[in-house]
Amino acid sequence: MEPHGLITLLTDFGEADYFVPAVKGVLFSINPAARAIDLTHHIPAQDIEAAAFTLGACYHHFPARTIHLAVVDPGVGSARRPIVVVAGEQYFVGPDNGLFSYVYAREQEVRVFHATREEYFRHPVSATFQGRDVFAPVAAHLSLGLDVEAVGTEIEDYIRFDLPQPSASANGRIAGQIIHIDRFGNCVTNFTTGELNPHQAPSSPRLICGGREITHFVTHFAEVQQPDELFAYPGSAGYWEIGVWRNSAADCLNAQRGMEVSLEFKSQD
Amino acid sequence: MEPHGLITLLTDFGEADYFVPAVKGVLFSINPAARAIDLTHHIPAQDIEAAAFTLGACYHHFPARTIHLAVVDPGVGSARRPIVVVAGEQYFVGPDNGLFSYVYAREQEVRVFHATREEYFRHPVSATFQGRDVFAPVAAHLSLGLDVEAVGTEIEDYIRFDLPQPSASANGRIAGQIIHIDRFGNCVTNFTTGELNPHQAPSSPRLICGGREITHFVTHFAEVQQPDELFAYPGSAGYWEIGVWRNSAADCLNAQRGMEVSLEFKSQD
Amino acid sequence: MEPHGLITLLTDFGEADYFVPAVKGVLFSINPAARAIDLTHHIPAQDIEAAAFTLGACYHHFPARTIHLAVVDPGVGSARRPIVVVAGEQYFVGPDNGLFSYVYAREQEVRVFHATREEYFRHPVSATFQGRDVFAPVAAHLSLGLDVEAVGTEIEDYIRFDLPQPSASANGRIAGQIIHIDRFGNCVTNFTTGELNPHQAPSSPRLICGGREITHFVTHFAEVQQPDELFAYPGSAGYWEIGVWRNSAADCLNAQRGMEVSLEFKSQD
Repeated sequence: MEPHGLITLLTDFGEADYFVPAVKGVLFSINPAARAIDLTHHIPAQDIEAAAFTLGACYHHFPARTIHLAVVDPGVGSARRPIVVVAGEQYFVGPDNGLFSYVYAREQEVRVFHATREEYFRHPVSATFQGRDVFAPVAAHLSLGLDVEAVGTEIEDYIRFDLPQPSASANGRIAGQIIHIDRFGNCVTNFTTGELNPHQAPSSPRLICGGREITHFVTHFAEVQQPDELFAYPGSAGYWEIGVWRNSAADCLNAQRGMEVSLEFKSQD
Repeated sequence: MEPHGLITLLTDFGEADYFVPAVKGVLFSINPAARAIDLTHHIPAQDIEAAAFTLGACYHHFPARTIHLAVVDPGVGSARRPIVVVAGEQYFVGPDNGLFSYVYAREQEVRVFHATREEYFRHPVSATFQGRDVFAPVAAHLSLGLDVEAVGTEIEDYIRFDLPQPSASANGRIAGQIIHIDRFGNCVTNFTTGELNPHQAPSSPRLICGGREITHFVTHFAEVQQPDELFAYPGSAGYWEIGVWRNSAADCLNAQRGMEVSLEFKSQD
Repeated sequence: MEPHGLITLLTDFGEADYFVPAVKGVLFSINPAARAIDLTHHIPAQDIEAAAFTLGACYHHFPARTIHLAVVDPGVGSARRPIVVVAGEQYFVGPDNGLFSYVYAREQEVRVFHATREEYFRHPVSATFQGRDVFAPVAAHLSLGLDVEAVGTEIEDYIRFDLPQPSASANGRIAGQIIHIDRFGNCVTNFTTGELNPHQAPSSPRLICGGREITHFVTHFAEVQQPDELFAYPGSAGYWEIGVWRNSAADCLNAQRGMEVSLEFKSQD
């Protein structure tokens, strides 16, 4: 089986500066047959949680042996560790700061290596641009077939943040939260589409969020043509989302990531 | 002749979210040798006409057997049909909503297939993200050599909108319109550069638009160095465009797509 | 050694219009095996100096025989020459307007050719879009192995602007300047990290810029957590840069490219 050489890139570098092309140049200088695929470079600056969500929502669509290079790295130059993660038959290269938390949560078997072997770095290593000097060369060497055990020591104490889980609250509601807001203002909740099926529920569900009640559960946008009416729909990342017709639900709800969304079942009487 | 595996992408997804990388992941998971080329992901949300113009202005530069995956799809989840178009030795995959109207107008032979064969979809098919679950897998299978007749039934009643044509009006003018505004504010008219050659015209042409007269017809920008003067030039998409030196013509004219532009020939006396 | 076919693209076209995909379509139509890598398309419109800096900060990371297609071209359609540059084992294709000045400054051996052989252009050549009709086809032919001497005559009088050098000024200071501002507002000075090492200096250095004094020289961002304090750090492009914690140094300094930055050594008494 011939290696496909796919290396994806996810950063908060934007696309206007020389940062992304410098990373790609290093990739190609080590492996001219590599194939660099942009996931996004528009993660809000230093927003590890947004990066983790976005990576978590798409990495699993890629074929086995894809290498995901993810650099959102507020601690660049400090003691935080560069790591390589092997999970779901894929590789992940980036800082040990929680960026891969959705991968850790989704995959059964996860191995994490602290990348210490400096012969796989670019030298001299810049204190401010380890995306170019540490993560890119390690990813490029992996794409050439380097065994992951060669990059450094396996570790167990890697950093992961717990993904927020809905929980029962005192008033009979289930307390969830908004875990992501996309660029259209759609609000992704942490109620999974697998767990909450409004059409199988014994009574009508509703979401309470930002002082508003959402009772309209739809399966696709074309069902909704009522301006300003908030509605819930099964999002393509596997969670229920809150939207509003041709407008930003986040603006309507004055929503921010972490804001509570309660779920309540009301008997149909 | 070895397949080149080129698949272009044109969407209104933006580049900040997981939508585009999810589509690419599906492409590569089906055909790891595919090559994903972004046309643009910055089509204004749900703007089918802008998507149609942009695709129409560049698809024909690509080599034969390129597959163009275009997803601007306000009707996602509704009854609108997913289609595959074969035209100009190229393939087009997307919703049947008029998105390929410039292709239909430009090419002599066009065949359109309703993609119904679900074995070429990704399952379960999301009701809100068919770019990932329907269009991308169909495009990937085509890039592997799938015969287009295998995706579904050929149809004749596909949706196309008529491209606006200039027409003679009562006052001796020819009434055209603005069909596109680019990001610099240049206004693309529907007067083709093939039909209107001001240097061969019997008398001086002028364009009337937004209450302004444009009498300056240039062949390249370097001729113009007069601030605030509107001028017309032969645009690279094959139409006359209205520009202004280092400024937005659309702002100067308060222009919107569909606004009338009249053409008049004045005798040189 | 198999050709890698890498062609990078740097333009001021933005990513919303058909301009970039038209260029890529022409590349692939001539060399279907070419690999188009975006450096950036977000150079400010017609800003040759920003383009020159950005290209200069990343081209040298790419492998030998990479072809860099750079189109920031205020003089399109005028008499300015299309050129091909061979330097540092790489190729550069673009207008002769100073865009390659950092390449000329960095590389020992530079050869420049005026691309006149029209059989390598796309016809008819548009007066407003030579990126598509001149530069792209020439780059594509080079990627197929065309000898650079075949594109036209070698020239010596190509346009280069001198990169600003720090110079001693009357008051004992060394006068430098801001040569680039990145999208985060970090201000790149023309003091190279090779020449100025504050830890080896006989006395404490400070930078004076926009009426502010910068005395804090750090090696990485993680050292700084003082809101609003300006600091200097060794940037990854090889120059000292001025930053501020989670804010725009350019805004704090009301900085523009070309603004003076003075360097002074103060005895530690």
